[in-house]
Amino acid sequence: MPERAVVALDGFGAERGFDVLAEGARRAAADGIGLRVFGPPQELYLEDVPGVEVVPCAEAIGNDEDAVPAVRSRRDASVVRAAAAVADGEADAMVSVGSTGAAMAAATFGLRRLQGVQRPALAVRLPVPGRPVLFLDAGANVEVRPQHLVQFAYLGAAFSEAVLGIADPSVGLLTVGEEAGKGTPAVAEARDVLAGSEGIRFAGNVEGRDVPAGVVDVVVTDGFTGNVSLKLMEGTARMVTGAIREAARSNPIAAAGGLLLRPALGGLRRELDPDATGGAILLGLRGIAIVGHGSSGPDGVANAIRLAARCVEVDAVGRTAELLERGGATRGALVAGDGT
Amino acid sequence: MPERAVVALDGFGAERGFDVLAEGARRAAADGIGLRVFGPPQELYLEDVPGVEVVPCAEAIGNDEDAVPAVRSRRDASVVRAAAAVADGEADAMVSVGSTGAAMAAATFGLRRLQGVQRPALAVRLPVPGRPVLFLDAGANVEVRPQHLVQFAYLGAAFSEAVLGIADPSVGLLTVGEEAGKGTPAVAEARDVLAGSEGIRFAGNVEGRDVPAGVVDVVVTDGFTGNVSLKLMEGTARMVTGAIREAARSNPIAAAGGLLLRPALGGLRRELDPDATGGAILLGLRGIAIVGHGSSGPDGVANAIRLAARCVEVDAVGRTAELLERGGATRGALVAGDGT
Repeated sequence: MPERAVVALDGFGAERGFDVLAEGARRAAADGIGLRVFGPPQELYLEDVPGVEVVPCAEAIGNDEDAVPAVRSRRDASVVRAAAAVADGEADAMVSVGSTGAAMAAATFGLRRLQGVQRPALAVRLPVPGRPVLFLDAGANVEVRPQHLVQFAYLGAAFSEAVLGIADPSVGLLTVGEEAGKGTPAVAEARDVLAGSEGIRFAGNVEGRDVPAGVVDVVVTDGFTGNVSLKLMEGTARMVTGAIREAARSNPIAAAGGLLLRPALGGLRRELDPDATGGAILLGLRGIAIVGHGSSGPDGVANAIRLAARCVEVDAVGRTAELLERGGATRGALVAGDGT
Repeated sequence: MPERAVVALDGFGAERGFDVLAEGARRAAADGIGLRVFGPPQELYLEDVPGVEVVPCAEAIGNDEDAVPAVRSRRDASVVRAAAAVADGEADAMVSVGSTGAAMAAATFGLRRLQGVQRPALAVRLPVPGRPVLFLDAGANVEVRPQHLVQFAYLGAAFSEAVLGIADPSVGLLTVGEEAGKGTPAVAEARDVLAGSEGIRFAGNVEGRDVPAGVVDVVVTDGFTGNVSLKLMEGTARMVTGAIREAARSNPIAAAGGLLLRPALGGLRRELDPDATGGAILLGLRGIAIVGHGSSGPDGVANAIRLAARCVEVDAVGRTAELLERGGATRGALVAGDGT
């Protein structure tokens, strides 16, 4: 029986307030996960919760701040201290539902990159009913070179296998057509390299419509396209479900139909719920960093903490390093080299 | 009363066959639109339809061919002849439901660019219920420079006003955050230029989730992000509606609910139907070119032809040229210059 994971939690940044953050912490702690929470004790009311230690911290980095300079200059900010706790071995993983930029910067500076990784990437599990699809980069790198895309493929495959439990996951490269050469020069070059890579099951190019269809287990793209795509998918799902809800209110017969159909839709609602996925994971670092939705409810916060703990339990970092090395055996030029 | 528009129709390329293409032509002709169809008379059976002239043509450019060299070398191909008909004044607009690449290449070479336009862009009307959103570039330019994005904004605004009838349309630039500076350097620079532009209502940055929410009338992006986004939106809408349909089959009560709800969903189904929008429009040329869905049904083909005719009736090309010129008064460096 492994020792229980200890997660460093940023005690600021929940858009729905300290109560929601604290309730999420309570739910995760009830599962036996240890927590060090960096935040204001007088707002969190967590002192009596077993397994939770609140480390008083009064400073937060906001969404409106320029993340990189803020993280570099403010060592007392809650997200920076959470990263430091992981780096110092006081915690096994960090979780923040605050500014995504600040969390990424704090993790990247605080936890350092795995050997050979040039750019960490933000990965999210897409709410594709019936098949979890890992999607990266969701916004860490708005511009990429071909070798970054290649590394994202390895990082995503390793995480998918280690944490999501998918054996030999298939990896697709997001672009504008199935044929080789389709897309930007960076994408075309990455495809050529991936097509000749070992230690990974590369399925070739995928198009936008293949992503929600769950055609592959891992979808790789740059952080600009990835961020736009992710938000577009969320927005489209919300638009369609909203329009159906509205149709169900348009007349009494439709309303009756909506009521009868409603219970059967519960599973779909849960699968499409952003709170269910636990947030985004920054891959490629020597530690676990989870960035939850700012708008998370208590379950969203708890699931982000649970995801962090699960990453620790399955040694996601070690297994990712291992797959990178395996890939590196054949693609030394691309996955080795610690430059940026 | 204006003379009726004459549309040059590519008589090949409909994935669902010549019958579907011909039936679409018949429906559009029934509205009083004149047609010159470049295709095989013995497959189309259109000879007795008033207002339709079939120009015998036996050669087509397929989806699997490299579009640019194919268009350059094969003057007898149906899509090339349709473009030539517009250039020669034998038709007022061209429509193809065949290879998008071939249609774009044939139109760009055949119709030439409007004064000052560096890159034509492919625009589509997104199926956002209740509010048509014009989205460009949907795939004509996988890489763009800042001035191309600026021009797309003018092209989109002009089309939205002239053809979609939206007075003073708002234009948003798709990127990864609301603040200036968010996104790639090209996006950040385009934003700065657009923020100081006249003759256009620039609403600033929009994010992925704003697109299906219908926050602006026109959304501008590069052709890589645009193509991925468009297909992702279609795929997500299909995924969600499919999952709901499946839920409605999961048990008898849900099935009854689905039946009662079904009539109220008719409007939404129509709004989400790709056939309803009539296809994509290549903007920035001295003529009208519409690229319909390859998988169009008869209504899809007819609506593409109707859209072409409507563009002619409202003088979309002339009004686009006018707005470009108005914008050019203040942004000469960006919209003038005929380079690529």
